[in-house]
Amino acid sequence: MINQEIIKSLARQTPSKIVMLVIDGLGGLPRPETGKTELETAHTPNLDKLAAEGICGLSEPVGPGITPGSAPGHTALFGYDPIAVNIGRGVLEAVGIDFPIEPDDVLARGNFCTVDNKGIITDRRAGRIGTDKSAALCPLLETKIDGIQVLTAPVREHRFVIVFRGPGLSPEVAETDPGQEGLLPVEAKAISAGAVKTANTVKRFIEHAGKVLADKHPANMVLLRGFSKKPDLPKMGDIYKLKPAAIATYPMYRGLARLVGMDILSTGTTFADELKTLKEHYNDYDFFFVHVKKTDAAGEDGDFDRKVKAIEEVDSALPELINLKPDVIVVTGDHSSPAMLKAHSWHPVPTLLYSSYCRPDKATEFSESACLQGGLGIFPATSIMPLAMANALKLSKYGA
Amino acid sequence: MINQEIIKSLARQTPSKIVMLVIDGLGGLPRPETGKTELETAHTPNLDKLAAEGICGLSEPVGPGITPGSAPGHTALFGYDPIAVNIGRGVLEAVGIDFPIEPDDVLARGNFCTVDNKGIITDRRAGRIGTDKSAALCPLLETKIDGIQVLTAPVREHRFVIVFRGPGLSPEVAETDPGQEGLLPVEAKAISAGAVKTANTVKRFIEHAGKVLADKHPANMVLLRGFSKKPDLPKMGDIYKLKPAAIATYPMYRGLARLVGMDILSTGTTFADELKTLKEHYNDYDFFFVHVKKTDAAGEDGDFDRKVKAIEEVDSALPELINLKPDVIVVTGDHSSPAMLKAHSWHPVPTLLYSSYCRPDKATEFSESACLQGGLGIFPATSIMPLAMANALKLSKYGA
Repeated sequence: MINQEIIKSLARQTPSKIVMLVIDGLGGLPRPETGKTELETAHTPNLDKLAAEGICGLSEPVGPGITPGSAPGHTALFGYDPIAVNIGRGVLEAVGIDFPIEPDDVLARGNFCTVDNKGIITDRRAGRIGTDKSAALCPLLETKIDGIQVLTAPVREHRFVIVFRGPGLSPEVAETDPGQEGLLPVEAKAISAGAVKTANTVKRFIEHAGKVLADKHPANMVLLRGFSKKPDLPKMGDIYKLKPAAIATYPMYRGLARLVGMDILSTGTTFADELKTLKEHYNDYDFFFVHVKKTDAAGEDGDFDRKVKAIEEVDSALPELINLKPDVIVVTGDHSSPAMLKAHSWHPVPTLLYSSYCRPDKATEFSESACLQGGLGIFPATSIMPLAMANALKLSKYGA
Repeated sequence: MINQEIIKSLARQTPSKIVMLVIDGLGGLPRPETGKTELETAHTPNLDKLAAEGICGLSEPVGPGITPGSAPGHTALFGYDPIAVNIGRGVLEAVGIDFPIEPDDVLARGNFCTVDNKGIITDRRAGRIGTDKSAALCPLLETKIDGIQVLTAPVREHRFVIVFRGPGLSPEVAETDPGQEGLLPVEAKAISAGAVKTANTVKRFIEHAGKVLADKHPANMVLLRGFSKKPDLPKMGDIYKLKPAAIATYPMYRGLARLVGMDILSTGTTFADELKTLKEHYNDYDFFFVHVKKTDAAGEDGDFDRKVKAIEEVDSALPELINLKPDVIVVTGDHSSPAMLKAHSWHPVPTLLYSSYCRPDKATEFSESACLQGGLGIFPATSIMPLAMANALKLSKYGA
């Protein structure tokens, strides 16, 4: 990828506007009966028109064969090296709920879970207890261990953030979630020598949690993952000389956007709500990140038809966005989530870029196979921001 | 890109010959009425035949979204990392007119300009005064400031080179050209702490220029940009074991070629002249860089039809080149210059490589859309030299 410092040195402020629509988990795999992916199955006249008038390709968030988590998927889309930038799940959840992180805090994402009387995990999500129940349980977990303050904050359903606050903590602690049921939680282990003290604190905290939750079935244990500290990232406003705003229905994506310095616009729960928010604030910003979650959720649930429907919902509302006439529209995903795999995957992501200055290609529909023939080729997702900036005429010439 | 040291370790001298024809600003954008670019509109039977028999692709000089200046565009074509190699505009202009640069010299490109009685720029090019007028004015600018000798040399029209010669100078000085009319010239500022003294010398020089030019309207002030020192680049002859020669009608491109160690062959003003020169010296060298400027000039002027015509002129003279039967012919550009944008642009550049050993693809014409389907794909321009060398059977096997 082109060094961000170079992009920064070329970026100039102009009145032109960029909208980046991220359809989470967009890429898919063909349903064997039809040979068509979710996107190819969906009826998407508006996306197809944009693809026909724009330039298409398949973007790779991290690299060939690498299945990205949501954090590297998005950091790449925002133009940051997803390998160099390490955003832990704990930090992500915390910034997504506006938790005031301090620079030395070590954070983890917590799940309430159910264990049997031998301590074996029977439900990693504690029956997906409601957010209100989590909120009532969280304060029980708060404590002080060896001078380290342990704070919590509920997120959504069974998920919460846990914060270890005090001097000398390291995020180099392995997760305690074994990733499947029928096993014991994994003991917290230090990944590096400097994290032994932190791992011991985490172990003692888990013991504490086991005690205070003993009679709170189904939420009678916790699993922790994504130990991390807040990264100190350059802000999109500084790099690109943009005024960027994020519109997302899910806290994690708002959190990611906040980490790179976007303003977070409050919105509702649907794509229609998001587009309403976009319209209301259209004059106040020159870059909008609009995030759609439903597609990924359907893909991860293995529900091909629901993912098709989620894509069609996006498509049918799209004229609202197009009618605002942004100078550049990017439609992409942060990774693929084929229903067939019920998970994120490594497959490159259908991407289209529409502007008056793109060199159109022969892709006349928005699909994995059309994008493969597109003018952007198979390309790193970190190129999307430089390309969007170039097409918005926001990058000066490089060199004499 | 492949490390140049590796290429150097593999390069071997052979009798085979490579001709690299650089059609400046070659790539374009479609004219809305026809959906065809300049190259697609031009009637180019000879280029089409080469494309059909050779291998095609789209080359990216610097990277996705990056619009290259002429210097990075050409350094990439010559196989040098265009990010690592920084050739300033001052150096470029100076080597283009054969000015004998000393290693400690700091050079800048100067423009004579017009300012009003408040010092505000009314014409950044002083009405494009003739080269003879510039030549008469340049000596007035020469002076000595704080022991630093200030030398000048006219280039073409309103453009000249200015040389600050003396100990302890730094090129880290910001340009004084605000880039648009209606503003005051920018005060020369040091970009780094080590350049404060140089910036002061430049400031005092500008005051001097204002005095000696006061009654020389329209050339009553100067703008300086591209402060730079001569880079110490490895020579093409050493890296590739080639004996390289440059044929170019414009000084800047001869200058670029000289910086990488090419011999400069004198030629006339047309492509026919260049081909005559090529023929005359064909036995004396094994690598020829032939540069065509007219295409870029037409693109920058926004003249679609003139660019089409310039491409057709190249095509119709091409048999002269082909009949010399070089082992490898490369036809490419240093960047795109779509008439629609009236400027250099970031769009990847149509590129063809013809040799007996390339693996031909399905591209049967030389055009942006055919190149997109070509066997070279979308690829970095720094790969062109290794590919040309390989196709000329000038690179040994790598590794045991």
